[in-house]
Amino acid sequence: MTAAIIGVGMTRFGRDLEHQLPELAFKAIDEALRDAGVSKEDIGFIAFGNVGGWSGEFFPLPIVCEYAGLNPRGGMRVEAACASGSAALAAACMAVESGYADIALAVGAERMNELASTPAIVELLGRGGNFFWEFEMLGLTFPAYYALFARAYMDEYGATEEDLAKIAVKNHYYGSMNPKAQFQKKITIEDVLNSRYVAWPLKLYDCSPITDGAAAAVVASERIASRLTDTPIWVKSQGIATAPANLTMRRDLLSIESVVEAARQAYRKARIEDPVRSLDLALVHDCFTIAEIIAYEDLGFARRGGGYLLAREEQTYIGGLIPVNTDGGLKAKGHPIAASGLAMIYEAVKQLRQEVDRGRQAPIKHGQALIHNVGGTGHFAYVTILSLEKP
Amino acid sequence: MTAAIIGVGMTRFGRDLEHQLPELAFKAIDEALRDAGVSKEDIGFIAFGNVGGWSGEFFPLPIVCEYAGLNPRGGMRVEAACASGSAALAAACMAVESGYADIALAVGAERMNELASTPAIVELLGRGGNFFWEFEMLGLTFPAYYALFARAYMDEYGATEEDLAKIAVKNHYYGSMNPKAQFQKKITIEDVLNSRYVAWPLKLYDCSPITDGAAAAVVASERIASRLTDTPIWVKSQGIATAPANLTMRRDLLSIESVVEAARQAYRKARIEDPVRSLDLALVHDCFTIAEIIAYEDLGFARRGGGYLLAREEQTYIGGLIPVNTDGGLKAKGHPIAASGLAMIYEAVKQLRQEVDRGRQAPIKHGQALIHNVGGTGHFAYVTILSLEKP
Repeated sequence: MTAAIIGVGMTRFGRDLEHQLPELAFKAIDEALRDAGVSKEDIGFIAFGNVGGWSGEFFPLPIVCEYAGLNPRGGMRVEAACASGSAALAAACMAVESGYADIALAVGAERMNELASTPAIVELLGRGGNFFWEFEMLGLTFPAYYALFARAYMDEYGATEEDLAKIAVKNHYYGSMNPKAQFQKKITIEDVLNSRYVAWPLKLYDCSPITDGAAAAVVASERIASRLTDTPIWVKSQGIATAPANLTMRRDLLSIESVVEAARQAYRKARIEDPVRSLDLALVHDCFTIAEIIAYEDLGFARRGGGYLLAREEQTYIGGLIPVNTDGGLKAKGHPIAASGLAMIYEAVKQLRQEVDRGRQAPIKHGQALIHNVGGTGHFAYVTILSLEKP
Repeated sequence: MTAAIIGVGMTRFGRDLEHQLPELAFKAIDEALRDAGVSKEDIGFIAFGNVGGWSGEFFPLPIVCEYAGLNPRGGMRVEAACASGSAALAAACMAVESGYADIALAVGAERMNELASTPAIVELLGRGGNFFWEFEMLGLTFPAYYALFARAYMDEYGATEEDLAKIAVKNHYYGSMNPKAQFQKKITIEDVLNSRYVAWPLKLYDCSPITDGAAAAVVASERIASRLTDTPIWVKSQGIATAPANLTMRRDLLSIESVVEAARQAYRKARIEDPVRSLDLALVHDCFTIAEIIAYEDLGFARRGGGYLLAREEQTYIGGLIPVNTDGGLKAKGHPIAASGLAMIYEAVKQLRQEVDRGRQAPIKHGQALIHNVGGTGHFAYVTILSLEKP
C-alpha cells in the first residue's frame, strides 16, 4: 500500500517566546487540516516529532493533543534527533500503510529560544554528538563537529571559505522570498566572510539559527487520498539509516555514512538511477554550510570532491543542475530541530503542487522531489522521495 | 497484513548501576534475537522505547545501535511515557505491516537508579502528570495522582486499604517465582499495611519501584514468521488512545478514559466481546495497586465498582476468573518505564508458548493474552491482544 500527503502546514519560523509548544503545534496542525480539507475527527493516528529538553513538558504529545482537541486519538512521540520530523512522517506513513489508520497526522514542533544564549543550549546541542566521550570528555560542541568536517573537506579537495559562503548566500536569497522564513534578507559573500568565527572555519553565517516553530503533514491511504484531493503527493520511498555517534568509529569525515545508506534505499525503492535527471528539486539538511556541500556528494548530485564546485558554479539555484533549498534551507528558514524535516516536506509539497510564489517556484518536469534530513552528526539519516505520480 | 512476535528477551530487572543503557538494551536484544533464531543482519527497522531524562545520553538510539552492532539499520526512538514499550511494539508492527521491513526490533530500556533518592527523580516522575499546572503550580507528585484516584475509588465504592494490599500480595507472590523480577519475595497483607505512607492512602508496598532494565521483541511479517517458528505469537490488535494530562479535564477519577477507548479499539479489532471468556491471562499496568483495580473495570473484567471485589475474592490468581500479572507485575517485577510494556509482552509470549515455570504458568485454553500499558496518569493507553491463532 502507498501513502500520500494531502495537506501541509507550518508556522512562520523565528524567535517566538510568546507561544508555548502546544500553541505552535496547533497552528501547524490547523493549517495542515485546512489544506487537506479534513477535520480532527478524521485523524486516526498522530506521530509527534519533538526533541524537547529545552521545553518544560517532559511528555509533550498529550499536552499537544489536549490543546488541539485531538484526544482520544492515539499516537506516540518519535525522536531521531534533528531528523525527528522525517521520523514523524515515516511513522504516520507506516500507520496508514499498515492499515492502522486511514488518515494520520505527522507533526514536528520545537521551542528552543527559551534557552538561547544560555550555556544550557550549548550542552543540549552538544549532546547531538557523542555525549559521554566527545562532549563531556573532549569538549566537542555541535558546531565543532561540522567544523572538523569542513576542515577535512577543505584540506582534501581545496574548497575555500568562499565556497562555503556561497551556500549561505544562496539560501538567504531564497529565504528573502519565503514569508515563513526566520531570516528574510539577502546577504553577500562579504557578510559571511566578515561574520565572527563560531568554530573555525565556520562563521556565524555558516550556521543555522536557534528557532521556534512547528510543521505538520496529513497523510492518507491510497483510497482516501485520491478521493480528497486532485494533487495527492505520494510518498514514493523513504530510506532510513543510523551510524555511530562516535567520530572515532567513522571511516572518514568527508561523507555521512548514514546518508549514503538512506539514499541508496530511497533511490532503489523509487527506481531512481540518476538523481539529477529524476528530481525537480531537493531540500537538504544545511545545519551548517559544509553539510549542504557534503550532502550534494552523498546524495549523488556531484562526484566525490565535486560538491563545492556545484556551489561555486551556482548550479543549485533554480535554473541550474538541481535547485536545492528553495525555501531558504535551515540556514535562512530556521531550524527548530524536530520541525525541520516536516518543514522541508512542506516546501517539497508546495513546490510539486506549483503553489510557490514566482521567483522561488522551481520548474516541475519530473514531478519528484527529495528531502534529506540528518540527525546529530549523521547518527540518523532519513531520505524521502515525494512524487506527483502514484508509485 | 499481520505481524507476529517470533522472539523475546529481557534483562533481570532491578537496581543496576553497573551497566549503561546500551549494555542493558543489548542484553535484551541479544536474548530476543537468539530466541527468534535470527541475526542482527536480518533486522530491517528498530523502534526504541526510552523516556530518558535520567540518562546521560540525549539521543540514545544511535548509541544503542552502535553498541549492539545494528548500524546502519534505520530506526527511531518512540515515547509514550510509561507506555513507551508498547509504542515501540506498535511502531515495529507498523514497520512490518506497511512492508517497510520484513523483520523489525522493538526495544525498551530505562536506567533510573542513577537518580533514585534524589529530588531530581521526584521532579522527573512528577512530569508524568501535567507538569506546568499540576506539578509546578499545585505540587502534585506522581504517587499523589494515584492517591487521589484511590481516595475517590474508596469513597465511591467502599474499597479498603486491605483490598489494595491484596494486589501487592498477589503480585509479590508471582514475583517470588519469577527469576527476572526485581523483588523475588512474598509479602503479607500486614507487610503492606504496616509500610509507611508515600501519599495517603498509598503506602510503600502499594507502589512500583525505581528500576533499571530492558526488554525486546522481534516482530516478523506473516510470510517470515511462519517460516521461522512453529509458535509465532500474532499481534491480533492494538488499541492506542490519548487523554488530557490535566486532571481538571477528566470526567471523574474512577476510570482512565484513554484505557476505555484503547480497550474498545483492541476488542473490536480482535472480535472479543467477553474478555474474561476470551483471554487466558492479562498483564496490566499496576504502577500502583489502585491502578490494577481500576484496570479490571476499564478492561471489562469486572463491572464498575466491582474491581476491588476481584482482588478481595482472589479471582485474578491462576485458577480464578482471569489470571493477572503472573510475572509479578510492575509492583514486584519492577518498572523501568519504557521497558515495562515490552516486559509484559515478554511474559505474555512465554505464557502463550507455555514456557513458564510451573506455579506461574496459566492454563492456555483460548490462546489469547492482553497487555495493558498506561502512560502518565492515563495520558496514553496501549492495549494489545496477542494470539496463538493467525488473525
